[in-house]
Amino acid sequence: MSQTLNVDLGLRSYPIHIGSGLLADPESYRPHVRGDRIMIVTNETVAPLYLDPLEQALSDYRVSRVVLPDGEQYKTMEVWNRIFDALLQERFGRDCTLVALGGGVIGDMAGFAAACYQRGVPFIQVPTTLLAQVDSSVGGKTGINHPAGKNMIGAFHQPLAVIADTDTLETLPQKELSAGLAEVLKYGFIRDAAFLAWLESHMAELLSRDPNALSHAIKRSCEIKALIVAEDELEAGQRALLNLGHTFGHAIEAGAGYGAWLHGEAVAVGTCMAANLSQRLGWLEDKDVERLRRLISCAGLPTEPPADLSPDQMLELMAVDKKVLDGKMRFVLLKELGEAIVTDEVDRDTLYATLADRRSL
Amino acid sequence: MSQTLNVDLGLRSYPIHIGSGLLADPESYRPHVRGDRIMIVTNETVAPLYLDPLEQALSDYRVSRVVLPDGEQYKTMEVWNRIFDALLQERFGRDCTLVALGGGVIGDMAGFAAACYQRGVPFIQVPTTLLAQVDSSVGGKTGINHPAGKNMIGAFHQPLAVIADTDTLETLPQKELSAGLAEVLKYGFIRDAAFLAWLESHMAELLSRDPNALSHAIKRSCEIKALIVAEDELEAGQRALLNLGHTFGHAIEAGAGYGAWLHGEAVAVGTCMAANLSQRLGWLEDKDVERLRRLISCAGLPTEPPADLSPDQMLELMAVDKKVLDGKMRFVLLKELGEAIVTDEVDRDTLYATLADRRSL
Repeated sequence: MSQTLNVDLGLRSYPIHIGSGLLADPESYRPHVRGDRIMIVTNETVAPLYLDPLEQALSDYRVSRVVLPDGEQYKTMEVWNRIFDALLQERFGRDCTLVALGGGVIGDMAGFAAACYQRGVPFIQVPTTLLAQVDSSVGGKTGINHPAGKNMIGAFHQPLAVIADTDTLETLPQKELSAGLAEVLKYGFIRDAAFLAWLESHMAELLSRDPNALSHAIKRSCEIKALIVAEDELEAGQRALLNLGHTFGHAIEAGAGYGAWLHGEAVAVGTCMAANLSQRLGWLEDKDVERLRRLISCAGLPTEPPADLSPDQMLELMAVDKKVLDGKMRFVLLKELGEAIVTDEVDRDTLYATLADRRSL
Repeated sequence: MSQTLNVDLGLRSYPIHIGSGLLADPESYRPHVRGDRIMIVTNETVAPLYLDPLEQALSDYRVSRVVLPDGEQYKTMEVWNRIFDALLQERFGRDCTLVALGGGVIGDMAGFAAACYQRGVPFIQVPTTLLAQVDSSVGGKTGINHPAGKNMIGAFHQPLAVIADTDTLETLPQKELSAGLAEVLKYGFIRDAAFLAWLESHMAELLSRDPNALSHAIKRSCEIKALIVAEDELEAGQRALLNLGHTFGHAIEAGAGYGAWLHGEAVAVGTCMAANLSQRLGWLEDKDVERLRRLISCAGLPTEPPADLSPDQMLELMAVDKKVLDGKMRFVLLKELGEAIVTDEVDRDTLYATLADRRSL
């Protein structure tokens, strides 16, 4: 049983298929593959689990593979270059399709390689983590990290299709499941109070991987993301709302060293900090902030930045984030739970107070 | 005195300004710069000649610079990454403009960095070689080399403007002037028999850098390129005609080691080989091929591949070129002088005969 959503981007429109058993089904790919050669890009954790069934599903094509090390610390230019090594070693021309099999790191690196190989070839996303299924595989943002900042080098390159097989979540470590829930909660916080209430009452099912609950959460998340991306593909405006918690979060990821924190964990803490700042600006009430922190905590996620990352270090790291325009830091904050805004009207003292505010639940 | 052409690409349209004194004139840039910060990307040869006057012309903005080593052998991922190091070191946000000051290598690397920095920032081309002014700065092809093939990693990213100051050609080494003429001749061979006749009768003036002759050659070359690019921005069809001599040429550049041959020199030899192949297919007559070789030779360019590059090595190197689709090599060949076509109907024996045919004029 599967469902299909559409990301409506004119000539670059594509479907998101969500359901059980999709990964091993040749029909998931047949309408989308271009050319007769496929390069699967995956990592050492995912390959033993899903590379064989994927290759069998693609047995009508000439399939090659490149297996990268697993983790955010490998989302580097050097590791990215291994994809080109493999493509050129095997003499891939332009008439091919890349397939990203894995989580957000694999999707970002494979998508960015597809954007740049011979100035652009098509690719398909086969996300195997909750985070990738609800967020990073949809919308065409691809890229790699630079030591000075996350996702600093990249491209907008939309996939031909997203094949989200919910069965793959059965093998996902609990920590990664929670990390994905951070992005699921984000959609509720920025845009959908009703979904947020649903998440609140179904968190236990989600954490115990009830297939119906997960399917609903993935579908609703992708619906919201697809809508926002269709309205603002290149992030000229409201797509920035999807970055709730990300300016703080990226600073935590960079400060702790890439790979030490999962992206979703850092976003969870960043969301708590954005709520703290929203409260200081008079937009959220105490009870809203508490409700938000409780939800994040119940999802198995951290709510405090690492103790050894000082407010000054955070400021320094945040100053190079992409969301800094013209020297002004822009923040995604909450007017209420279910409504986000983008603002650059945050004075330094208020920001500093948030960075210095370390409370425990 | 200057002239302006337009590259007509809808929202991505931009002007090419051609003339004397443009580089040092603030008005060349004012209508185009975005944001208040500029990163000039240049190399160690060009910087001592033109960095100061360019920085003075841009003195209304906050200007930074990154100076790369000079030569095709440095068009690598590692050197490209130094542009990101500089941008991040100086905390450039998205609201900035990159300026490429130099020849084709600088334009390709700076343009590709602009395509990828924070998923895309604008850039301006300030070409200082004849080759860059007539060809590489126009049309939005950007990229870097991989050890296995030239321009294998890149993007289509159109500049905001091309500022071609003909005065910069006064400092150009003779070898580089000739290399640029290889691309000028190309436009005549593929599309404009009248221009070809004009080039034939004005080669001496061009080689002695007569400003009027150079201006006319640059303008006519850019007109033809702008027309072709406007019709086929992403090289789905006839833009490939601009690659006359390039499949052979790229193999020579890679085979000799990047930097050993200038790109234009390799293209000159590649054009002779394309003519040889066109003759074997019955399209060109002996006298056409001789006329083509004589013109290339008169421009101070080589007409024979390096003696130590065997036909088999050439074949091997050509097989990874971007113009290979689906295992089939595509060639840009000449139906007559002034008309090119793209074909994949070249049998291996005929190709091999061309690769093995080493004649001297």
